[in-house]
Amino acid sequence: MRPTGLLHLGNYLGALQNWVELQDDYDCIYCAVDIHALTTVESQADTNQIQSNIEDMILDWLAAGIDPERSIVFVQSQVPEVMTLHTLLSMVTPLGWLTRVPTFKEKVRQMDETEETVNYGLVGYPVLQTADIILYKADTVPVGRDQVPHIELSREIARRFNNFFGDTFPEPQAKLTESPLLVGLDGQAKMSKSLDNHLDLAATPEDTSKRVLTAFTDPQRTTRNIPGRPEVCNVYSMHQMFSSSTAVSAVYSECTTAARGCVDCKRQLAGSINDFLEPMRDRRKEYESRPGYVREILDEGGKRARAIAAKTIEEVYEKMGLARG
Amino acid sequence: MRPTGLLHLGNYLGALQNWVELQDDYDCIYCAVDIHALTTVESQADTNQIQSNIEDMILDWLAAGIDPERSIVFVQSQVPEVMTLHTLLSMVTPLGWLTRVPTFKEKVRQMDETEETVNYGLVGYPVLQTADIILYKADTVPVGRDQVPHIELSREIARRFNNFFGDTFPEPQAKLTESPLLVGLDGQAKMSKSLDNHLDLAATPEDTSKRVLTAFTDPQRTTRNIPGRPEVCNVYSMHQMFSSSTAVSAVYSECTTAARGCVDCKRQLAGSINDFLEPMRDRRKEYESRPGYVREILDEGGKRARAIAAKTIEEVYEKMGLARG
Repeated sequence: MRPTGLLHLGNYLGALQNWVELQDDYDCIYCAVDIHALTTVESQADTNQIQSNIEDMILDWLAAGIDPERSIVFVQSQVPEVMTLHTLLSMVTPLGWLTRVPTFKEKVRQMDETEETVNYGLVGYPVLQTADIILYKADTVPVGRDQVPHIELSREIARRFNNFFGDTFPEPQAKLTESPLLVGLDGQAKMSKSLDNHLDLAATPEDTSKRVLTAFTDPQRTTRNIPGRPEVCNVYSMHQMFSSSTAVSAVYSECTTAARGCVDCKRQLAGSINDFLEPMRDRRKEYESRPGYVREILDEGGKRARAIAAKTIEEVYEKMGLARG
Repeated sequence: MRPTGLLHLGNYLGALQNWVELQDDYDCIYCAVDIHALTTVESQADTNQIQSNIEDMILDWLAAGIDPERSIVFVQSQVPEVMTLHTLLSMVTPLGWLTRVPTFKEKVRQMDETEETVNYGLVGYPVLQTADIILYKADTVPVGRDQVPHIELSREIARRFNNFFGDTFPEPQAKLTESPLLVGLDGQAKMSKSLDNHLDLAATPEDTSKRVLTAFTDPQRTTRNIPGRPEVCNVYSMHQMFSSSTAVSAVYSECTTAARGCVDCKRQLAGSINDFLEPMRDRRKEYESRPGYVREILDEGGKRARAIAAKTIEEVYEKMGLARG
């Protein structure tokens, strides 16, 4: 995950929740990709933020239930071997595979750049991602639907390496997370920090309630006595995710009969969301109460990751006929 | 230098001789670039050759007078930090800078590829070259005229990094070696292994003489009693490089008056070349007499290079806001 700072409820439902569950069935490796974050920075001011963003994000992971005893949790740049592998994989990856990736073309457009002016490193984004995966010989990668083409590309790069230099890497498979998209507080299709329509996992119950009270509801319900239409209501859709089914039924009937107003409805939703977030807040407090603990977890995770990485690089050096130590 | 195996007299005059001399005035770092060699390999068969090519080439360096006590001599892949830096520099290098490099366009044409099918790593050739230079904060790079655009690009990449992240790297300067081009034995413009018109530095005196005797001379001198034209004669041009000026004058007058024949003239040239190569052969014998010695030199050189590299990477991590170890 790219370290963009504090995570919100949409990030939790879209990825983190699934990551937590996967720990029961897999040996998991979770990594904050600070080198990927560099593909779009242009000054030291941009980078100064990266490390504090990482600590915020990792704390959110731990609060959400990522267990550093069971999973390896670390920061990408703690394992420079990923850049060794990135460079070596670049020798088996045709340029056209990379410039054809739809997310690359979109990114170039978004950044208001051309294929001439974007950084070489941005072109190699999927190669570095592949290195992140196969450095640990991971066979499964939990991703959203938009990332599936990248995992396909990773498989192709792994396959090409294996063809050239002998069987070395498993071809990683995408594990799709089917999760309902969380709408933003303003009713926009997706909760997102840049739209400021989000609920931070780390927010206090009070702040969370305050923000929930700003949520949009059915725009036709301009006064309390007009019945609402839950099927177009942002708050109702969040009740469906965070309130009990009994509560959801009550919301539906009371809204459509104007038996409840939107403010009360939002207060109830805030309560449900705060209940949902409470175990995370408790875990967060535990982690925060031990100064330097997050740093320790990352140091330990980095060491474990590096041990796996070093073995893979040794094998890759051998296969590619490079110098030993 | 790319490890292509045994070096010939053209390589010596074009680069090695200068490298040896530079040791008197600079702290020199000489590196066999096995990772660069990977930009154009496509199978394990291609790579199997790399390590033995390296040992052959390093022995030629040492025989030529590269002094591992004074200079750092090592193999690129012994210092994986170069790939770390390559990846990080890729974040500040616009793609267009790389695809515009004339040597890139030529290489693509030579390989009968397109800009779509060549490897991403080949595009990054000058980025890896830049990493090779600035990882050691080298200020001066001895190169031939064809490499000047690459060093210019290295300066631009170093400058862009410094602009983004603060002053870190000196901008390396090209140090041009003005050396006369050695023609091939067949009279072609350049001595080259692929044309098989070369004289290996490692060849025995007997083999060297044998090959010199195959050299082309003035094609109009079809019999011994026709006077020759030294100004168009391949052998005469080599006399000018390897024989004493007294001998060269004698060759000139005896050739133009048909007082000497081409075979005698070539025998004399072989003698001059063997005299020239003799000190190299002596040094080579010394190095060869100690089994494992070349390996030891590379191990030691790799360690020294890695120590410098580790310091630079630490600074780069700090400047780019990446995680510490």
